[in-house]
Amino acid sequence: MNTFGHIFRITTFGESHGKGIGVTIDGCPAGLELDLDFLASEMKRRKPGQSKITTPRKEKDELQILSGTFEGKTTGTPLAIFIPNQDQKSNDYSHIADKFRPSHADYTYQKKYGNRDYRGGGRSSARETAARVAAGAVAKLFLKSKGISIQGYVSQVGNITLQKSYSELDFSYNKKGENIIRCPDAETANQMIDLIEKVKNEGDTIGGVVSCVLENVPVGLGEPVFDKLHAELGKAMLSINAVKGFEYGSGFEGIKLKGSEHNDEFYTDENGKIRTKTNYSGGIQGGISNGEDIYFKVAFKPVATLMKDQESIDKEGNKTIVSGKGRHDPCVVPRAVPIVEAMAALVIADFYLRQKVANNL
Amino acid sequence: MNTFGHIFRITTFGESHGKGIGVTIDGCPAGLELDLDFLASEMKRRKPGQSKITTPRKEKDELQILSGTFEGKTTGTPLAIFIPNQDQKSNDYSHIADKFRPSHADYTYQKKYGNRDYRGGGRSSARETAARVAAGAVAKLFLKSKGISIQGYVSQVGNITLQKSYSELDFSYNKKGENIIRCPDAETANQMIDLIEKVKNEGDTIGGVVSCVLENVPVGLGEPVFDKLHAELGKAMLSINAVKGFEYGSGFEGIKLKGSEHNDEFYTDENGKIRTKTNYSGGIQGGISNGEDIYFKVAFKPVATLMKDQESIDKEGNKTIVSGKGRHDPCVVPRAVPIVEAMAALVIADFYLRQKVANNL
Amino acid sequence: MNTFGHIFRITTFGESHGKGIGVTIDGCPAGLELDLDFLASEMKRRKPGQSKITTPRKEKDELQILSGTFEGKTTGTPLAIFIPNQDQKSNDYSHIADKFRPSHADYTYQKKYGNRDYRGGGRSSARETAARVAAGAVAKLFLKSKGISIQGYVSQVGNITLQKSYSELDFSYNKKGENIIRCPDAETANQMIDLIEKVKNEGDTIGGVVSCVLENVPVGLGEPVFDKLHAELGKAMLSINAVKGFEYGSGFEGIKLKGSEHNDEFYTDENGKIRTKTNYSGGIQGGISNGEDIYFKVAFKPVATLMKDQESIDKEGNKTIVSGKGRHDPCVVPRAVPIVEAMAALVIADFYLRQKVANNL
Amino acid sequence: MNTFGHIFRITTFGESHGKGIGVTIDGCPAGLELDLDFLASEMKRRKPGQSKITTPRKEKDELQILSGTFEGKTTGTPLAIFIPNQDQKSNDYSHIADKFRPSHADYTYQKKYGNRDYRGGGRSSARETAARVAAGAVAKLFLKSKGISIQGYVSQVGNITLQKSYSELDFSYNKKGENIIRCPDAETANQMIDLIEKVKNEGDTIGGVVSCVLENVPVGLGEPVFDKLHAELGKAMLSINAVKGFEYGSGFEGIKLKGSEHNDEFYTDENGKIRTKTNYSGGIQGGISNGEDIYFKVAFKPVATLMKDQESIDKEGNKTIVSGKGRHDPCVVPRAVPIVEAMAALVIADFYLRQKVANNL
Repeated sequence: MNTFGHIFRITTFGESHGKGIGVTIDGCPAGLELDLDFLASEMKRRKPGQSKITTPRKEKDELQILSGTFEGKTTGTPLAIFIPNQDQKSNDYSHIADKFRPSHADYTYQKKYGNRDYRGGGRSSARETAARVAAGAVAKLFLKSKGISIQGYVSQVGNITLQKSYSELDFSYNKKGENIIRCPDAETANQMIDLIEKVKNEGDTIGGVVSCVLENVPVGLGEPVFDKLHAELGKAMLSINAVKGFEYGSGFEGIKLKGSEHNDEFYTDENGKIRTKTNYSGGIQGGISNGEDIYFKVAFKPVATLMKDQESIDKEGNKTIVSGKGRHDPCVVPRAVPIVEAMAALVIADFYLRQKVANNL
Repeated sequence: MNTFGHIFRITTFGESHGKGIGVTIDGCPAGLELDLDFLASEMKRRKPGQSKITTPRKEKDELQILSGTFEGKTTGTPLAIFIPNQDQKSNDYSHIADKFRPSHADYTYQKKYGNRDYRGGGRSSARETAARVAAGAVAKLFLKSKGISIQGYVSQVGNITLQKSYSELDFSYNKKGENIIRCPDAETANQMIDLIEKVKNEGDTIGGVVSCVLENVPVGLGEPVFDKLHAELGKAMLSINAVKGFEYGSGFEGIKLKGSEHNDEFYTDENGKIRTKTNYSGGIQGGISNGEDIYFKVAFKPVATLMKDQESIDKEGNKTIVSGKGRHDPCVVPRAVPIVEAMAALVIADFYLRQKVANNL
Repeated sequence: MNTFGHIFRITTFGESHGKGIGVTIDGCPAGLELDLDFLASEMKRRKPGQSKITTPRKEKDELQILSGTFEGKTTGTPLAIFIPNQDQKSNDYSHIADKFRPSHADYTYQKKYGNRDYRGGGRSSARETAARVAAGAVAKLFLKSKGISIQGYVSQVGNITLQKSYSELDFSYNKKGENIIRCPDAETANQMIDLIEKVKNEGDTIGGVVSCVLENVPVGLGEPVFDKLHAELGKAMLSINAVKGFEYGSGFEGIKLKGSEHNDEFYTDENGKIRTKTNYSGGIQGGISNGEDIYFKVAFKPVATLMKDQESIDKEGNKTIVSGKGRHDPCVVPRAVPIVEAMAALVIADFYLRQKVANNL
Repeated sequence: MNTFGHIFRITTFGESHGKGIGVTIDGCPAGLELDLDFLASEMKRRKPGQSKITTPRKEKDELQILSGTFEGKTTGTPLAIFIPNQDQKSNDYSHIADKFRPSHADYTYQKKYGNRDYRGGGRSSARETAARVAAGAVAKLFLKSKGISIQGYVSQVGNITLQKSYSELDFSYNKKGENIIRCPDAETANQMIDLIEKVKNEGDTIGGVVSCVLENVPVGLGEPVFDKLHAELGKAMLSINAVKGFEYGSGFEGIKLKGSEHNDEFYTDENGKIRTKTNYSGGIQGGISNGEDIYFKVAFKPVATLMKDQESIDKEGNKTIVSGKGRHDPCVVPRAVPIVEAMAALVIADFYLRQKVANNL
């Protein structure tokens, strides 16, 4: 339930307002140099309070490596990482102890488990994703050693949509410092930021899309028939808080095309490498990577916590008002970019290791 | 890899042109009456050759129950089902033994495994889904005993879209016999059929969308944080051949809404039942069912096999022509409806049993 | 529940008096030549009716390969094997339909599942192990390609014990045709056979021990801390019908030794290979193979079916007599040798593939 | 690899001389009162330095509950527990950094992973079992709420064997405070203590046996055919450091009996409960609990660390001397009792929850 992956496998734990959150990584190959600066930089990208369009909650998100390394390298034994909570204002939540916030997990957790830690959503809080980013950073280090790269970005906020395909974008903007919305097109980025600020000022929230591209994934990753590469990517993305949809390659748009338009014809390039002329397949055919770029989109709903009063009910089923309090993001997508990347890294690292087996003769 | 589910767990096997395909169901509760007529009727809905808009391949798809029942009831031991292949025309495939068909799994299987059964796509053939429908029918029998129902239908073919939401539709059309496109709106259904016939006559294919509604799912199903109900549904759907996208509830459209529009406010209905006024959440909050209808959409790409010549390469990487031969569907969605339902049934049955455990005090 | 293994993974199905039994092997590497003669020869070693000291039930145990091969080689997709039942005398069992045979699984199956196939024990019958031998034969073919060999033999029947350690035995007796008791020491073998015949004539049964040696297992197999090599071997053996105990290396005898006697000192041999002077460790240290021979013992209880009357109760809890009928083995160990080997092969093949992953840098 | 269990599932992490060790428990039912005093008392039973016959290493073994509880009760979300290391004398180990200690895991870890934390055995240290005892204590609390009890005790040290069967023993000695050897027979206990002291004074070590009895386990636990109750118990025990063998019920002795002696005849007792007259089956038939007491034995080898010089080799394969240093137990069995109990509790809790599913109609 709280475990993800088959070989490169993580288990997360912790709540929004408990002692902290953490993750155990089992199956990370031994001998990987654990670049702590890189881990910290990834945490910083997800961290609350990083800009005017994110929640003002302040968390250092400092990683404590509890086990699994020796002299700076992984040992093949479980790597446990703990991230203490710091800026907890549990009192902020006493007003909702007995109420069910609309479109949160309050009601379903209460009914499923019979009790719940209501402070900040407890386990259902997006704070849990900090553990995923930490684990994903380790997976990224592993993939980097294999030449595989992962690039997420914001491609839609509300009805403002980035009109360029991933291949037209310049991802080097990362190296100069991403913009606060993490959209690699300056003009669109500014429009998105403006929209979020406007919505924020209304005490409201807005949804968005995170797109992601995986480059240099070798041919052969993915395990039919159920653990198809895109099926696991889809599950990984849908397991992130607030996600409502996933598509890869041509996605929902592709259904309007005819087969003769949509098929990706093979050819051999000048270096003798087998390629496809187009890439509607999104780098995956029959559930297995084909060596082309893998790209996909993840839809995030508007954040459910508003700075507005809303009607709801309490534990006894009586009418009540949930008033807007607490500290939250007006739009999750800027901070969701590193989370999407982290989950993608975990999926690819796992399949990379699983593929070692298929050809073992 | 070929196993799906945790408690109610299936393993499928078999190829398009081998002896047959099959499935082992482990974890089905004992004492379930195995209604063989119902199983047969489900197989008939997926069966090739059922109408003018499906492949003319003829398969009886007769189920052989190899184990797991005694005196008509399940015994709690593995239920193995075998479906022999009959109308195999393996010679149809000799022309592609050394060629990679565009947007099929030929190339990726060859590279991943080093060899492959090229006849009809072998294991990558959608024929494998017959085993899923058989297993899903057993899951449906279990869910029926709990009052849970599953209803799939075609909501889009190419650019023809059903304009009604699921709650406006009359699913009793099923009982009268579904139409051949399985769209519960006569006018739209006819337009879709016309489009598919037109595309078929061109030797081409077209994509579509299957929508699905789950009614009477009890509150509490789904296992955060990774095995969220919609995450497993998404994986299940994305594991079906030709699927490119999945969304539930408000989906990709929901991102344009503000939180104040999108939030589903709770109320207590006249029977004292906790309900939500709207259902943008799609019946799932925090990854757990909330008792409202669960609904989702699945995008299918146009079938890759055309009755047209296409450019491609052979095993040695040399240019070649793949010519249109074999027997295939011009559009998969009519036959995909029972497959989507089957996978949904497997997911819900599994979570139903998993939930028995969570509350055990 | 009916699945064993992580990468090289089998799922068995079927009952003693149903249509047959079978197994699906998932995760077998592609490209393995499937030597059907070898598979048949392994089945013959487990087959009932093979000698005067085994059950007279006649089963051909012919394997039907349902999927997973192409042109004689595995394809990396699931290999399904079916073994039809033939010599079923279900009527033999009507007398126990409502009775619980002492020390059988009748009572526990009835209570666990609420119903049961009482014919020949149904799923609890040792006939299920035929599926394990078939799968184990495939695993043996894989291991053979890596130079790993597995040798089981009978080392005890009742109180007749083979007094030689495995290293003093000549396993070439196999090639000449094993003796019917499968004890590689002619004199002890004859004593064992005499004892079994005597017990059989009394309508009684007797227990025994199967020993097993694994040679050329590479260093590094086993996955601490829970999936230690000997822990999985132990589980594999204890999952075989009638097994009551498992020990490896020095086993229960080793506890009487002092550490200074029991420790295996390392040295480097003339070929520069690291070895140990003694092998009380049984080839496994810290749950990981160390390159020495792995050896272990498996205790089998006396068969519960007797040709004698026994007191028992019926479904209603009333006193009754279970009379001796049916066809059974007076001692399971001769036929258990290939089963022990098969389970060992499955464990080693699985760990072999898992180890490919641990070192992936 | 570092995860155990299916529903009630634990993942342990940590090393002997790192920051500490810990465990995540996933699948513990919500609403369980977490009696911290009980947890502490269990830790105390395993703790080093508890008597003159255990290692003098001093560890407080204080538990830090990192997540999964709210207002003193479990929430159904992962329960993470951390146990900081305190009395680390890492310098004690510099002398073995490049040497392989005989019958330790130094060599196999080095070969498997390519590097290792050599301090105190790192991950292979029995210190890891502290995490198991913590998790097992939680499982015990769950089982206590169901009326199930678990009682381990020492039944053999070297060649001193407790001559009474479990049913002749008085376990109330526990309530008065167990003796330091944890053998519930005063005279035998004293002999065992004397032997251990003698061996300790020689700088040597000795093996032993821990027996265990489970009372009030309901009928129906265990999942044939591979996850038989005793198969999982066996794996659980064999996964504990230094274990060489496992037997249940009549065990290795039972093989000398005839079936007519060994069979447990059923009867209905005065309360209408179905019982067996004898219990050679050890409370398990066909892999499923039958309601009788479950009992088993676990063999522990002599500790490999001696206070004597031993011959060995270094990393380069050159001859070297490993001299006796560090702090270790002369015999593990007194401290192994709570570990055996903990692993048994984890197995039973897991099967208890799994059984909720089998009968779900």
